[in-house]
Amino acid sequence: MRKLSITMILACLCAWTFAQQALFGGQTIESPEIHPDNTVTFRFSAPKAIRVQITGDFLPPQKMKTQFGEMDVPGVTDLTEGKNGVWEYTTPEPLPSELYGYSFIVDGIKTTDPNNVYLSRDVATVTNIFIIGGGQADLYKVNKVEHGTVAKVWYNSPTLGTTRRLTVYTPAGYETSGKRYPVLYLLHGAGGDEEAWATLGRATQILDNLIAQGKAKPMLVVMPNGYTGMEAAPGESEAGMFKPSMGMATSMEGSYESSFPDIVKFIESRYRVVKAKNGRAIAGLSMGGFHSIHISKYYPDMFDYVGLFSAAIMPNKNSKSPVYQNLEQKLKIQFDKKPKLYWIGIGKTDFLYQANKDYRKLLDEKNYKYTYRESDGGHIWKNWRIYLSEFAPLLFK
Amino acid sequence: MRKLSITMILACLCAWTFAQQALFGGQTIESPEIHPDNTVTFRFSAPKAIRVQITGDFLPPQKMKTQFGEMDVPGVTDLTEGKNGVWEYTTPEPLPSELYGYSFIVDGIKTTDPNNVYLSRDVATVTNIFIIGGGQADLYKVNKVEHGTVAKVWYNSPTLGTTRRLTVYTPAGYETSGKRYPVLYLLHGAGGDEEAWATLGRATQILDNLIAQGKAKPMLVVMPNGYTGMEAAPGESEAGMFKPSMGMATSMEGSYESSFPDIVKFIESRYRVVKAKNGRAIAGLSMGGFHSIHISKYYPDMFDYVGLFSAAIMPNKNSKSPVYQNLEQKLKIQFDKKPKLYWIGIGKTDFLYQANKDYRKLLDEKNYKYTYRESDGGHIWKNWRIYLSEFAPLLFK
Repeated sequence: MRKLSITMILACLCAWTFAQQALFGGQTIESPEIHPDNTVTFRFSAPKAIRVQITGDFLPPQKMKTQFGEMDVPGVTDLTEGKNGVWEYTTPEPLPSELYGYSFIVDGIKTTDPNNVYLSRDVATVTNIFIIGGGQADLYKVNKVEHGTVAKVWYNSPTLGTTRRLTVYTPAGYETSGKRYPVLYLLHGAGGDEEAWATLGRATQILDNLIAQGKAKPMLVVMPNGYTGMEAAPGESEAGMFKPSMGMATSMEGSYESSFPDIVKFIESRYRVVKAKNGRAIAGLSMGGFHSIHISKYYPDMFDYVGLFSAAIMPNKNSKSPVYQNLEQKLKIQFDKKPKLYWIGIGKTDFLYQANKDYRKLLDEKNYKYTYRESDGGHIWKNWRIYLSEFAPLLFK
Repeated sequence: MRKLSITMILACLCAWTFAQQALFGGQTIESPEIHPDNTVTFRFSAPKAIRVQITGDFLPPQKMKTQFGEMDVPGVTDLTEGKNGVWEYTTPEPLPSELYGYSFIVDGIKTTDPNNVYLSRDVATVTNIFIIGGGQADLYKVNKVEHGTVAKVWYNSPTLGTTRRLTVYTPAGYETSGKRYPVLYLLHGAGGDEEAWATLGRATQILDNLIAQGKAKPMLVVMPNGYTGMEAAPGESEAGMFKPSMGMATSMEGSYESSFPDIVKFIESRYRVVKAKNGRAIAGLSMGGFHSIHISKYYPDMFDYVGLFSAAIMPNKNSKSPVYQNLEQKLKIQFDKKPKLYWIGIGKTDFLYQANKDYRKLLDEKNYKYTYRESDGGHIWKNWRIYLSEFAPLLFK
């Protein structure tokens, strides 16, 4: 038997990988490098490039004119070419604690950072991410705490006549405690799916950390897919590896709201949970906020806690679904039953700010009680992570 | 209350996204386009580029000289510039059914395909993937079959003094059948982690499909992390978002093998499984094949089914761990107990081919019974997916 040392074999495996990396144009520089003072250096090797830029949400935003008015979009800045064709940019100031996304632009072509394997997909755009700790974003990190379980689960929806995929977070200790747990149903926005809150939203890390700190009650978090025309996230159903888009399937016509009890029924038969209004919360961002409004009022005995994160608030005049009929009458029934929490969060520059203001005016006129949180910024994940961090501790108390 | 139509809001959401995409250099062309005859067109928009190439494992491999001899690495070919700066390449022949990976190279810089959001990470390299169906790779697709649950679970290892993350696949029907299920422990190779088999290996899809076809028994598949110096995959532990490498932590020194019963114990206390040798299988690729050899012989009453996929077969002369001592004596004990299956798979051009041949010679000399599968190709995921597809149907019969 030929004797090869472990070291030699590992060297061999490495050589194979490095060879492949070299061929693939792999780079071995460090990027992003987060310095002790929270300034960050980005590096990109491109000896032949004429211009290398970086765009990301840590840069001062640019204004962009659209038909709906001016909107903030991530800024762009130049890297400087250094030795051996390695381009570099260091932030002039330390970055505040946050989860950031960025891409390089090399001679006009957007590219991911080959030295950073951490990526997030938002609809059809994949960008690199990094986290600056020491503040709010410590909640988004995996810390030395007990971790819950995250499962991708298929459930049957008799109403929709199909099986569908959802993400379920069960808190640490669930499997062995013997206790019943409350459930937060957490809904994504347009273009999202059952992956969105767990990836872009860092819901798993936020719940692990809030529960470990004693700030939130141990709870299940159920993240369904809000597009009834889809069984699962892109690539996770028989629809195959299609290209995601914002208008993947209509789901503001009542079918999601009217089939939602299938999800609750499934969760309450599969998991050891509290089967009562005071053990159920529903919250969602943008389109998911729209869904949360309508589901919670259409089933006024189902949820004691409702969270609207930058909700796409507007009546759907085109739908004949009973879900959307008689909004004010249904709200009266819902609020007469005095939900324990009706929480509304919106950013000052969100294009849905006015719609939310109008909705609050309606609630105010009727003296319906709600909690209001106004943040900086617009229609962005940064805000939705913050809202979840603030909303979850208010639940099931 | 200001009335906005749903259409208008969706248009607005879209405008916001498109604006962002435009800024990020997003592209709206189709790539890869899989034609009905299984030829494939790749497209990349780069009006200012001088040369755009593609590299991928669907191209004829190139030979690369290394200190360990010639190795096959993915080939490279040129795209042709067409209208509006969109470069294009169409495969001259239909591609055989397979899961393929590729990257573009723009003026020497490797980049991902911005029109394809499906990516796989292999150690520190992220590449785009696509699947050509109609043959073997139909097993790698999500098909219209019942789907199992995939969970990321943390377990406690008293032997290692830490909690650690693993991936658990439970087959469709597990939660409601009341039956006990057998378990396949499926181990990754050097540079891998508890994500590798579920992503690069398509283990979830393979098992869903084989079980639905009646070719494999319903079973759990447990995919642990083989690096005892790590708690979890990159980005999933308190170690943060570090850059993965091949030599992330030593794990061919005995600690993984000697702590493996912690995993079995955890699974058998947490899940409704068969707690007997004939209900347990262990298999692994490369370093995971090495682990499978040593775990199965060190605990000769634990596993009735053993699979070595391109196993890194060699005695570890440097380790003083009892795990590796007296190999031949331990193999005798293991084989005297007549395991139901001892399966060895290797590619003809694998750099570990000779080591596997030598190992088989040792088994042959002792008349130890094993099943041998020799495939084309080398030390690649294509082979490991095929081996799993062939190995799983042989289990628990």
